[in-house]
Amino acid sequence: MATNSNSEEFETLDPKDWKQSKALMHQMIEDAFDYIKNVRERKIWQEMPETVLNSFNTSLPKQPSDAKTVYKALQETVLPYPMGNIHPRFWAWYMGNGTISGVMGDFWASVLNPNLGGGNHAAHKVEEQVIDWIKEIVQFPKSAGGLMVSGGSMANYTALAVARNTKADYDIRKEGLKENNLVFYASKEIHSCNTKAIELLGLGTKGLKKIKVNNDYTINIDALKQQIKEDRDNGLQPICVIGTSGTVNTGAIDDLNAIAEICVKEKLWFHVDGAIGAIAMLSPKIKPLLKGIECADSIALDLHKWLHMPFEAGCVLIKDNNQHKNTFSLIPEYLAKNTRGIASGSDWFSEYGLQLSRRFRALKVWMSFKEHGSERFGRMITKNVEQAHYLGNLITKHNDLELLAPIGMDIVCFRYNPGKLHLEQLNAINKEIKLQIEERAVALPGYTTLNGIYCLRCAISSHRANTHDFDDFITNVRNIGNEILQNGILTP
Amino acid sequence: MATNSNSEEFETLDPKDWKQSKALMHQMIEDAFDYIKNVRERKIWQEMPETVLNSFNTSLPKQPSDAKTVYKALQETVLPYPMGNIHPRFWAWYMGNGTISGVMGDFWASVLNPNLGGGNHAAHKVEEQVIDWIKEIVQFPKSAGGLMVSGGSMANYTALAVARNTKADYDIRKEGLKENNLVFYASKEIHSCNTKAIELLGLGTKGLKKIKVNNDYTINIDALKQQIKEDRDNGLQPICVIGTSGTVNTGAIDDLNAIAEICVKEKLWFHVDGAIGAIAMLSPKIKPLLKGIECADSIALDLHKWLHMPFEAGCVLIKDNNQHKNTFSLIPEYLAKNTRGIASGSDWFSEYGLQLSRRFRALKVWMSFKEHGSERFGRMITKNVEQAHYLGNLITKHNDLELLAPIGMDIVCFRYNPGKLHLEQLNAINKEIKLQIEERAVALPGYTTLNGIYCLRCAISSHRANTHDFDDFITNVRNIGNEILQNGILTP
Ligand SMILES: Cc1ncc(COP(=O)(O)O)c(C=O)c1O
Ligand SMILES: Cc1ncc(COP(=O)(O)O)c(C=O)c1O
Repeated sequence: MATNSNSEEFETLDPKDWKQSKALMHQMIEDAFDYIKNVRERKIWQEMPETVLNSFNTSLPKQPSDAKTVYKALQETVLPYPMGNIHPRFWAWYMGNGTISGVMGDFWASVLNPNLGGGNHAAHKVEEQVIDWIKEIVQFPKSAGGLMVSGGSMANYTALAVARNTKADYDIRKEGLKENNLVFYASKEIHSCNTKAIELLGLGTKGLKKIKVNNDYTINIDALKQQIKEDRDNGLQPICVIGTSGTVNTGAIDDLNAIAEICVKEKLWFHVDGAIGAIAMLSPKIKPLLKGIECADSIALDLHKWLHMPFEAGCVLIKDNNQHKNTFSLIPEYLAKNTRGIASGSDWFSEYGLQLSRRFRALKVWMSFKEHGSERFGRMITKNVEQAHYLGNLITKHNDLELLAPIGMDIVCFRYNPGKLHLEQLNAINKEIKLQIEERAVALPGYTTLNGIYCLRCAISSHRANTHDFDDFITNVRNIGNEILQNGILTP
Repeated sequence: MATNSNSEEFETLDPKDWKQSKALMHQMIEDAFDYIKNVRERKIWQEMPETVLNSFNTSLPKQPSDAKTVYKALQETVLPYPMGNIHPRFWAWYMGNGTISGVMGDFWASVLNPNLGGGNHAAHKVEEQVIDWIKEIVQFPKSAGGLMVSGGSMANYTALAVARNTKADYDIRKEGLKENNLVFYASKEIHSCNTKAIELLGLGTKGLKKIKVNNDYTINIDALKQQIKEDRDNGLQPICVIGTSGTVNTGAIDDLNAIAEICVKEKLWFHVDGAIGAIAMLSPKIKPLLKGIECADSIALDLHKWLHMPFEAGCVLIKDNNQHKNTFSLIPEYLAKNTRGIASGSDWFSEYGLQLSRRFRALKVWMSFKEHGSERFGRMITKNVEQAHYLGNLITKHNDLELLAPIGMDIVCFRYNPGKLHLEQLNAINKEIKLQIEERAVALPGYTTLNGIYCLRCAISSHRANTHDFDDFITNVRNIGNEILQNGILTP
């Protein structure tokens, strides 16, 4: 087979007209900056109309269109129907807002498009540096192992895999799970991604023992000790305790020092799920509450939550670099390293996790820390904690509102409770309030259930929120609650 | 605690001066377009000087700088030292080049910044549509389960987890691995990420039996049958065969029909690692070779390889949606769904994989397919295959070059062999050629070892390469080889 025809030879996926393509991208910049700058003026969320929904049912486009037409489709069918999480009043699932600096970093990551699986190139050094910075933040030694991952779930998964392989008394990696008796521990308030990780690691749902919590939703240390003892007596093999620094429901911070002590005594792995709270080490207000985190064997952090990086950006740290590598490093011939050139370089990131090809996630973090400085991020975190208490005060000030849990960091759980309603009615009215708050585009609060009680749950991780947002929110909650009561919706 | 002071209240992570920030981003667009357009004129790879390396050793920046200064650092320390994979002559590890349309999609993903964990918003619909398109491409039913993942490694991991949980005869998810006897099968040429996945799933390295290959590096079907029988006789429980459509070493495509037949007969899960080749269903030239892929229970695809999406973009498909969900769905209270509003919507993507928070990976794929049409992507794939044969012809034309394996799709393995050298000398000289090719920035070929023979390995997945690139490459290989010979470097 000889060379192909000239016309085909020079068809590429690059723009046919570079100037036109660039002009379109300049227009996108104009629109995107407006989109972010005016986020407060647009509806935080709205239902997609039928025509828009239908537009997503068309089959694979076989013929080309042009970039401008595609952009028009984006503008008409996607941009107006966001999730809401870049809006100052998004306090639902725990997420960051994103930032312009993050967008710039991500933009260059896509343009440069390196593969962070490994190799000797600048992007690899940038990621190494960012991981070193994160070690600094949580007071881990520079010798620790670390990896940027897609988020908290993968960070926890990665750490728990290392814990499993390190703590078993045989070579699980080679031989597989020989006995069905390894046990992890955490409080009942543990995030579900840890359960999923432990199931996937082959230990089963039963491989995670959930310990009861105190009134402040932190793990009950005595119950933990008791369970470990009981399990040992029953022939199980305890291997790891997971402490949470910032639970998803209420923001509770487990007593990390107490867990560290147990782990040393019992020779267990100490993992901290710090998806929400570990980065709060940057806030002088929260840092003292996290005491003990530096004793962990591993920490999972999320940078697309309270550090506001655009998705995705998580990080896992393992104090002993070799333990980290021993679980994941696997170098076949086609990945063998050289002493010089692109395939040289020290350890490759693919030796530290499940992924081989990896996006240049670190760049946005690198550029953001350089631009804003870590102290500004710390102030943003402190501000959210203060806002949570501001909201808490508003709630306690009103007789028809009820705070349902201590405010952990930046998370506030409460309900509308005008009195005289029983539990089911209260749950129903609060569910309805939550939906109407959404549908009227007042805000996007979250929700959860604590001891059977339905709560409105505000996770205030917005760098754009201000106190007026909370005043207005509370006014609306009370008005809507009152309206529902008046309309007798709850008495069918 | 009352409201905080006004100045702190209104410090955010948004630009202090929107106009200035926007101007900087416009400048970035100018520079980025030049960067991509002129990629051929810049060195494909170069060593980082000491000063640059040192700049990555500074500690966490505490104080702010400004975006312009940060951009300058990016320009000076990162942009000149790329991995090389966006260059037309990058034929090393199997990667795509990236595209401008992909950059645009990724840009909007970062601006909108939705979380694809779930919810009722347009981004979720876009991802559903993209997954449906991929089902169309590989002839899977619309009812199949699917998920965009970070890449081929996670796609394989996800599918193998479903295979494990579905095929065991007890509830692994709940009870954990009770017997140490589950076995996966694949050829010796299987990609290492599958081994890693099986180790992590708790089956151990021994949970993957590697079957010998034929001369064309495809799995030996008789040996596979024999091994399954032997294992059953020995009390092991075969659960899954992994076929590869495009092996990483030579691009070999296993006989998928034959594997499908075995799997039906033996009641095994049939998984296809299509990280390289599944998307080649878009090429009329390759599609017939992939016959049988539609019979698989699951397929792993990569879109940041031969579809040229910027990292990361992979996809996993599971033919039976319920089996997919049964392995991963886990819905705690704080993720409970509503019937209306943002928290409604059908299935959430977090029910289909390890990740909860997920980037809007689908957008770049959606925009790219709409702009280019699937047929153009197919032509790009065909072009690479033709280029591989063009290179193969160049190699066979020269007496001092030796083709070392059949050309599988777009992968060419060969060596410089002027005659009269023994194996060790040949390996040494070819290693040196590979390094000098890199250091002289001629191209970035890959390398691997086949039966103890060191090969230069060209994986031609570039939409930017042309035939002259291969002419020039071969001239350089021969010249460098000859130079090394002349200089007697090999006789110390
Ligand atoms: C405590 C905790 N751990 C883990 C996670 C999972 O993190 P991600 O969504 O980044 O996967 C979350 C998410 O909210 C969380 O709150
Ligand atoms: C056959 C095969 N499977 C899986 C992978 C892993 O894919 P990724 O690098 O996207 O994780 C590769 C990567 O080259 C591959 O060639």
